[in-house]
Amino acid sequence: MNKRQELILQIVKEGGPITGEQIADQLNLTRATLRPDLAILTMAGFLDARPRVGYFYTGKSGTQLLTENLQKLYVKDFQSIPVVVSENVSVYDAICTMFLEDVGTMFVVDHNSKLVGVLSRKDLLRASIGKQELTNIPVNIIMTRMPNITMCKKEDLLIDIAQKLIEKQIDALPIVKETENGFEVVGRITKTNITKAFLSLAKDQ
Amino acid sequence: MNKRQELILQIVKEGGPITGEQIADQLNLTRATLRPDLAILTMAGFLDARPRVGYFYTGKSGTQLLTENLQKLYVKDFQSIPVVVSENVSVYDAICTMFLEDVGTMFVVDHNSKLVGVLSRKDLLRASIGKQELTNIPVNIIMTRMPNITMCKKEDLLIDIAQKLIEKQIDALPIVKETENGFEVVGRITKTNITKAFLSLAKDQ
Repeated sequence: MNKRQELILQIVKEGGPITGEQIADQLNLTRATLRPDLAILTMAGFLDARPRVGYFYTGKSGTQLLTENLQKLYVKDFQSIPVVVSENVSVYDAICTMFLEDVGTMFVVDHNSKLVGVLSRKDLLRASIGKQELTNIPVNIIMTRMPNITMCKKEDLLIDIAQKLIEKQIDALPIVKETENGFEVVGRITKTNITKAFLSLAKDQ
Repeated sequence: MNKRQELILQIVKEGGPITGEQIADQLNLTRATLRPDLAILTMAGFLDARPRVGYFYTGKSGTQLLTENLQKLYVKDFQSIPVVVSENVSVYDAICTMFLEDVGTMFVVDHNSKLVGVLSRKDLLRASIGKQELTNIPVNIIMTRMPNITMCKKEDLLIDIAQKLIEKQIDALPIVKETENGFEVVGRITKTNITKAFLSLAKDQ
């Protein structure tokens, strides 16, 4: 941004909405001289122009404009397939499923295939150093259960899910669809998916 | 981008480097008329101008320009503190440390405090469903050992680390500093850190 563009930005910030004519007056320049600068500031997103109103400051920095691209990434474009186990399965069998499927988080469902719990590697590890026989404990004893489960929808913004994962200090969320008798698990979104999204930003799409 | 800007971009793509004068000729317009459009295309990064040479096409799309911002994120700005255990510690004690420190990956060091292995929750879970007594097995039996450890440096680009985490299907990397007798562990970088970096892009920095 050149010196004159910075001046214009300052003027609009303080006095906007303001016409091109008025900005030119303040700078002792002609409207024609200013036109390229105003075009650039508008094109770059710093200013917005409304007919018969004038220019106003959008309040957007370069970084904010960059982040608008992030606001276009949705859960449905980066999700993974969910791995589910029945609530009556033993902790031992759940651990085996976790290794077979190579996932870090599994979802527990009832006889109607509706979400009732979440099992993380941490939950399974905690159970496995206990004194009990792992083949005798059903997963519904050790899982995180409803209503303490953070869920999301396919249409959610990826950036909001990243926020939830960090806030709640968890690795994965179930993607659900609401039905009459509960939530159906339709997907899984993890820090791995977020890492892939981060990478996708750096690649030519 | 307006129709005329698209035309200019096309002309420069095909005939660049080319002077403003020459572009104006091709479009039957004056140099003055073109000036705002050329300024915008240059400002937006599509064209670059060199004195006494003319305009040339940078080959950059809007997405590429966005991603240049990603190329400014370094490991050192998003790293976490590493959690290390000695190679003689038992698997049981390592699991306790993992819960106490609340991490998903720990690094194993020798008597010189140099990196010799990596322990993930998955490694510990695998060991814990085995038949052995966990207090009797040292971690160096079950850890991933050198030279099979993927490492990184503080100065590495975050985007390259994200790539490694996905390629190698791991959750964390040790950040190391090379010394005469091996690698000193100075940090830890995880998918959680990448998720936070992703979030930071969306926030006003």
